[in-house]
Amino acid sequence: MAEPITLVPIGHVRARTQDSLKEIELQPQFGDGLAGVESQERLWVLYWMHQLSAGDRTLLRVHPRGDCSRPKRGVFALHSPSRPNPIGMTRVTLLRREGNRLLVEGLDALAGSPVLDIKSG
Amino acid sequence: MAEPITLVPIGHVRARTQDSLKEIELQPQFGDGLAGVESQERLWVLYWMHQLSAGDRTLLRVHPRGDCSRPKRGVFALHSPSRPNPIGMTRVTLLRREGNRLLVEGLDALAGSPVLDIKSG
Repeated sequence: MAEPITLVPIGHVRARTQDSLKEIELQPQFGDGLAGVESQERLWVLYWMHQLSAGDRTLLRVHPRGDCSRPKRGVFALHSPSRPNPIGMTRVTLLRREGNRLLVEGLDALAGSPVLDIKSG
Repeated sequence: MAEPITLVPIGHVRARTQDSLKEIELQPQFGDGLAGVESQERLWVLYWMHQLSAGDRTLLRVHPRGDCSRPKRGVFALHSPSRPNPIGMTRVTLLRREGNRLLVEGLDALAGSPVLDIKSG
């Protein structure tokens, strides 16, 4: 049950000059998986919060929104980035596809974040 | 960018006699992450679709809902389980917590599926 699971990034997040816009660039070998994606207005994007330290992955109780005046709660009752498997999950708006690149709005991932999966949303 | 990412299952899905109910059993070392979860009515559960074959992970175009009368589409435009990183993502209703176990409704995961993450939903 507890054997480690290995994921392969399918692409990564690129920054755009405009803050609210991000680009997802898929690796060429996964481009075929985008066939027909243009018909989707909303997509779920799963990504890896790669800037977290190994220590962040060991925290199981944190202050909600980092507010020390609030008592600590379990990470599985929150949206804190600190968690054993820091997978980010955001519903985005698809603005445009250009080959293996998707221009999206509302993706709260840092530039460089590995993208793990994209699903219709 | 394309280095593999390693996840550690935090628990697994257990079947209940009633189809619509499932139990999530966390490994004891992650139990602390559930502190305060009782206050949540809805949770997102991320799990690993462990019954898929390595071949299923290579499919990039499939017939929507397995319906061969419909043209194939890219897996990133669908909710098909076939995808390079078969992470299932379901919003469930939390019915009860008993220690390291959560009784939930609406989880479409097979019994035995490794659980990767739980977020407030």
